[in-house]
Amino acid sequence: MNYSCSRYELKCNECGKRFGNQPLSACPDCLAPLEITYDREAARHLFTKENIAAGPANIWRYAALLPIPDGFQPDLPVGFTPLVRAKNLGKRIGAANLYVKNDAVCFPTLSFKDRVVSVALANAQKFGFDIVGCSSTGNLANSVAAQAARLGLKATILVPADLEPAKILNTLVYGARLVRIDGNYDHVNRLCTQIADEYAWGLVNVNLRPYYAEGSKTVGYEIAEQLGWRLPDNVVVPMAGGSLIRKIRKAFNELIYLGLVEEKPVRFFGAQASGCSPISVAVKEGTDTIEPQRPNTIARSLAIGNPADGPAAAKMIRSSGGWAEDVSDVEIVSGIQELAETEGIFTETAGGVTTAVTARLYADGRISANETTVTCITGNGLKTTDALIGRYQQERAVRPRLADFDAYLRELDGITELELTTAGAL
Amino acid sequence: MNYSCSRYELKCNECGKRFGNQPLSACPDCLAPLEITYDREAARHLFTKENIAAGPANIWRYAALLPIPDGFQPDLPVGFTPLVRAKNLGKRIGAANLYVKNDAVCFPTLSFKDRVVSVALANAQKFGFDIVGCSSTGNLANSVAAQAARLGLKATILVPADLEPAKILNTLVYGARLVRIDGNYDHVNRLCTQIADEYAWGLVNVNLRPYYAEGSKTVGYEIAEQLGWRLPDNVVVPMAGGSLIRKIRKAFNELIYLGLVEEKPVRFFGAQASGCSPISVAVKEGTDTIEPQRPNTIARSLAIGNPADGPAAAKMIRSSGGWAEDVSDVEIVSGIQELAETEGIFTETAGGVTTAVTARLYADGRISANETTVTCITGNGLKTTDALIGRYQQERAVRPRLADFDAYLRELDGITELELTTAGAL
Ligand SMILES: Cc1ncc(COP(=O)(O)O)c(C=O)c1O
Ligand SMILES: Cc1ncc(COP(=O)(O)O)c(C=O)c1O
Ligand SMILES: [Zn+2]
Ligand SMILES: [Zn+2]
Repeated sequence: MNYSCSRYELKCNECGKRFGNQPLSACPDCLAPLEITYDREAARHLFTKENIAAGPANIWRYAALLPIPDGFQPDLPVGFTPLVRAKNLGKRIGAANLYVKNDAVCFPTLSFKDRVVSVALANAQKFGFDIVGCSSTGNLANSVAAQAARLGLKATILVPADLEPAKILNTLVYGARLVRIDGNYDHVNRLCTQIADEYAWGLVNVNLRPYYAEGSKTVGYEIAEQLGWRLPDNVVVPMAGGSLIRKIRKAFNELIYLGLVEEKPVRFFGAQASGCSPISVAVKEGTDTIEPQRPNTIARSLAIGNPADGPAAAKMIRSSGGWAEDVSDVEIVSGIQELAETEGIFTETAGGVTTAVTARLYADGRISANETTVTCITGNGLKTTDALIGRYQQERAVRPRLADFDAYLRELDGITELELTTAGAL
Repeated sequence: MNYSCSRYELKCNECGKRFGNQPLSACPDCLAPLEITYDREAARHLFTKENIAAGPANIWRYAALLPIPDGFQPDLPVGFTPLVRAKNLGKRIGAANLYVKNDAVCFPTLSFKDRVVSVALANAQKFGFDIVGCSSTGNLANSVAAQAARLGLKATILVPADLEPAKILNTLVYGARLVRIDGNYDHVNRLCTQIADEYAWGLVNVNLRPYYAEGSKTVGYEIAEQLGWRLPDNVVVPMAGGSLIRKIRKAFNELIYLGLVEEKPVRFFGAQASGCSPISVAVKEGTDTIEPQRPNTIARSLAIGNPADGPAAAKMIRSSGGWAEDVSDVEIVSGIQELAETEGIFTETAGGVTTAVTARLYADGRISANETTVTCITGNGLKTTDALIGRYQQERAVRPRLADFDAYLRELDGITELELTTAGAL
């Protein structure tokens, strides 16, 4: 397998200055975020449908447009998650051409964060960091802890103190050092910026952020390839820091530029929880200025009150002709249930947000029935089971006898005469 | 995509009588279990490396040797989970060529049961069942509930009353009817046999069992293909009913027969919890007679005291030159932690069993260092988080200030001077 990648380096979005490759996330001159830029001519030769099809069924098939160091040998088969046609959910919400991109089963830790972490850690190793880490709302913590363990790197991970138990356990079990911070994600993140200046640590979403963020492009590449090298009409994406949604746009732009898909307008729709909706509010108010919020929602993985990529995300969404919406905690839980009951996909609170927002967009006529829409499910329901506590009552236990079972079913009253037909009559 | 499958039908293992295709699991004459038999000549033409390579990256690439009805259109991209080289775990336990087959990330419900359920439900639909179900120790419940939801089938699922909370929730969320039975799995299963006689239900592991069980062969096909169409020296497999381990053997036999791999001896090693070890005890005592046990272990997914395929599994293991082992609950938890810390894979209690047994087999010299061994991780750790309760202490929350963070790290005492080198010095 040839994982050769196009030459790439850091570049300032604002002033255009280039910085080679180093653990650096903002331009020292104008303080704007740095992004990875590629040698487009090399990409034109390497990033072809044929090369991609010949690659493995994971994100490394797109290595030619990922910032991975020379000689990189991918260690884990990350990504290439299913894109499933969602006919049942579509029927419920009035969507005739709906697809679910299902990162609830992303390898190895069941969220799209595995994509960004694998790219970031490839660079952390190249830069010589022995200790890696992140500030996280949960999924990133899980992924950094797991992938660091596998790579033999030590991990120190900072999270808000009130994180869900399953996400805490799913960080500690890999042997990572987890530090609970008395504050919300925005406090945690500010502290991590200081830590990156002070310690020789590779913090994937801080000093390695430009590399990290590129990993999210693979969601966009996969959507296009899985649709048969075609772009959808609409994409619905959950937003926390606002990075994922922008990177899907970047992926589509690259595919158009390189001629892998036909150019067409794609509208981007952002999804947030009403309890933490700074980007959605900005989109609705028609501004690129983000008014920071103090998060209060069960969708803790999306609870970033002051999103780093918020302004750029809001701008991109509006210029695409899309929209942003936010939903209540009650709607989030219904969204989780609706996706499970119709498509058999159990997602975490963030996916409840995305599903509920998708339903709302169809209901409000912002997306019309026949358009092709991909809704991005980004994490697994087993990580936020506490959100469903009290939703299901514990039924009494039944004695293991057919007569008792029969009586119980009649009592449940959910049983119809038809069901009681004996097997012989089938 | 052509999913044509070789002709197949039910056949009695004992008397050789054939029964066509119907919801039936035992021979009416000799009461022996029925198994699926295929038209081998058709298979020889259809089941080739080329056809398989041209298929999708999921179990349907092996459709030619799965019992799926004519015209079957696969609905879900099940299986084709990663086979990862486990160098770190290998180093710890003295294994130089160890691989982990990782069904902890199987699509859609994170256990190998997704494989068997998708094959069983394809047949349930063909036989015209509107209601499907199973008796389950948890993972099967999750998978039937999810896949039935997606297919628009109603599901009624019976489980022991004391199942783990995450497995209960992960059944209910899909809208399935879950019946908790006051007893252990063996009680549940006996009741389900009666239900299958009485109701017109398709119970995947009861009246659809021969179809269901064939789905497990895909673990074997994948292992061989992922090793480059080569068989390993050893396989370590967790056992509950004893079906999976037998079907991996069956898959290898088919691959040898059809010439897709070179024939070679493969030793099969079964893994159980000491709190429910009827098959392991039989293997150790050199008998094919299973002495039923009353299960008492945290590995509830393996807690089948009277395993249906126990005698055949014990016989196969011994005739392969393999062995079976069982481990205590404490070892199971250590196994979970060891796999997470070394390979970044978080498995459930069943995977803790497999990991601990694998370690034991190397320690006891039953497997030697240089042999190629595949250890089968069959379920996800997020489903049995209760097994780790009390293992990790909740550290105090730290104020979001660098000085506090510095002080906390020094207090933790895990910090070395080296780590405190400033980033500038890197
Ligand atoms: C499950 C899930 N979905 C979506 C997001 C949003 O990603 P971004 O911060 O790139 O907007 C996150 C971020 O943590 C997440 O955990
Ligand atoms: C996670 C897991 N592994 C292994 C098994 C064992 O499978 P079998 O009953 O085929 O021996 C089960 C069965 O429920 C299971 O849930
Ligand atoms: Zn600049
Ligand atoms: Zn017979």
